[in-house]
Amino acid sequence: MSLPRIGVFDSGVGGLTVLRAMSAQFPAHYFYFGDTARLPYGTKSAETVARYASGAARFLESQNIDLLVIACNSATALALPQIQQAVKVPVVGVVEPGAATASAISSSRSAVVIATEATVSSHAYREALNRYGMAAHEMACPLLVPLVEEGWIDHPVTEQVARIYLGEAFAAASDQADVLVLACTHYPLLAPLLRRITPEHVAIVDSAESTSQAVRQLLQDSECHPERSEDTLATERSRRPPLDPSIPPTDHRTFRFFVTDSTDKFKRLATRFLGRQVDHVEHVDLGG
Amino acid sequence: MSLPRIGVFDSGVGGLTVLRAMSAQFPAHYFYFGDTARLPYGTKSAETVARYASGAARFLESQNIDLLVIACNSATALALPQIQQAVKVPVVGVVEPGAATASAISSSRSAVVIATEATVSSHAYREALNRYGMAAHEMACPLLVPLVEEGWIDHPVTEQVARIYLGEAFAAASDQADVLVLACTHYPLLAPLLRRITPEHVAIVDSAESTSQAVRQLLQDSECHPERSEDTLATERSRRPPLDPSIPPTDHRTFRFFVTDSTDKFKRLATRFLGRQVDHVEHVDLGG
Repeated sequence: MSLPRIGVFDSGVGGLTVLRAMSAQFPAHYFYFGDTARLPYGTKSAETVARYASGAARFLESQNIDLLVIACNSATALALPQIQQAVKVPVVGVVEPGAATASAISSSRSAVVIATEATVSSHAYREALNRYGMAAHEMACPLLVPLVEEGWIDHPVTEQVARIYLGEAFAAASDQADVLVLACTHYPLLAPLLRRITPEHVAIVDSAESTSQAVRQLLQDSECHPERSEDTLATERSRRPPLDPSIPPTDHRTFRFFVTDSTDKFKRLATRFLGRQVDHVEHVDLGG
Repeated sequence: MSLPRIGVFDSGVGGLTVLRAMSAQFPAHYFYFGDTARLPYGTKSAETVARYASGAARFLESQNIDLLVIACNSATALALPQIQQAVKVPVVGVVEPGAATASAISSSRSAVVIATEATVSSHAYREALNRYGMAAHEMACPLLVPLVEEGWIDHPVTEQVARIYLGEAFAAASDQADVLVLACTHYPLLAPLLRRITPEHVAIVDSAESTSQAVRQLLQDSECHPERSEDTLATERSRRPPLDPSIPPTDHRTFRFFVTDSTDKFKRLATRFLGRQVDHVEHVDLGG
């Protein structure tokens, strides 16, 4: 049986933490698209993010993917319905899986959510957590992404900045929160530092990891019930042309990377985010 | 005599420090364009920046400007020739004026230049300073822009980050540099903090201020010698249609603001950068 073809979309390198989690969990052909010429999405308006993300989603669909993962909290929070309308394949975002995991482990029913400004402004996590009967205290942490991209993963300045943000967020939550949701795909790289400065009784939910588990579940459900809908992954796969012969079946995981800006900078950062050498990156021009 | 019409272009709000310096120095009708849907330019490649900036320059030219100021170090460093080709009006960038001022005040003929990653990678300041017979030690400071935009203008974290960057830069310059060039339009807001932590014998050159002086000089030269070329500002002005009646001649300075992303965020930041209330901002879609 052929491997699933999974499209992964982010505005830049952050979504590679989701790709990393997925590729550790299950074999697939992975197609990663980083809209690096137009990043960051986290500071842009909903209309702009929806337009950019839909274009990227259509590009990935043209690679004959079975399933699209929006590995970008801002794009999921601001534009998931528009992206789902733009393509025919099933679309998985990062908000719902993170909220579901938080709900599964919380006793106090109260969570702190840290994210970019755009994700917080959308209140997508608050709404998702409210649906699970949980209270959410959202905190925009706009300096954490640049600190991660500067490579200051375990740096005193990053710790000081994170202490300021978390101090404020947990104070607003009246110390009742027992879950911290990392609602930005850059933040998993800060997990060790954040674990060190987060109150001991607080569990950390990594939305990259949660999303990976949700995708695996979806793939397994689709294998078990290939007949249940015209839109199932198995049906989609059977309609596909043969696999691109340029993709070797290495270890049952293959990777293609597409970016809209310079491939050099992406390669440098990608190696850090993915935890493996990234040598070949293809440039794509979506216009604009 | 009618006021000059000056177009000011930046990827975001940073160029407002140049607008602020100019409007303090001379009356004009100012047209500011912030390409906020595609910012920051400082992390993007030369090709992408050239494409974005040329589109923005053509938009400003359509406002019947006499002169265009590229109030963006990244765009000047990476794409000034392409922008000059894209429009017919005279174009002033921020690199040359900053380098000229540094040269005029340096005794040691050695400068430290702090800027974004893209500006440093272009080595535009090093080349400009070399032409004046000066040595340049360029240092990318990618965290300073997000710190300014977070509003941490005089914050202990910002001071710590700036100390790290400047310490490294002046060490590389072997303590010989007697000028620090602020080669990013966000940095003038950090000038008091930077003055406090920069060695006393080092003069600080603000490229926003230097650019404003260069534009004033150009306008004065054009007034004195209106006959010297078909392309002079006076000639251009005489060909123009009458002023837009929607622009009231308030204090001989009028302002129009155009942005490609949300106007709300721009208004909030603009008030801080410009040092005056910004109420009316127009949204423009350049595609992409």
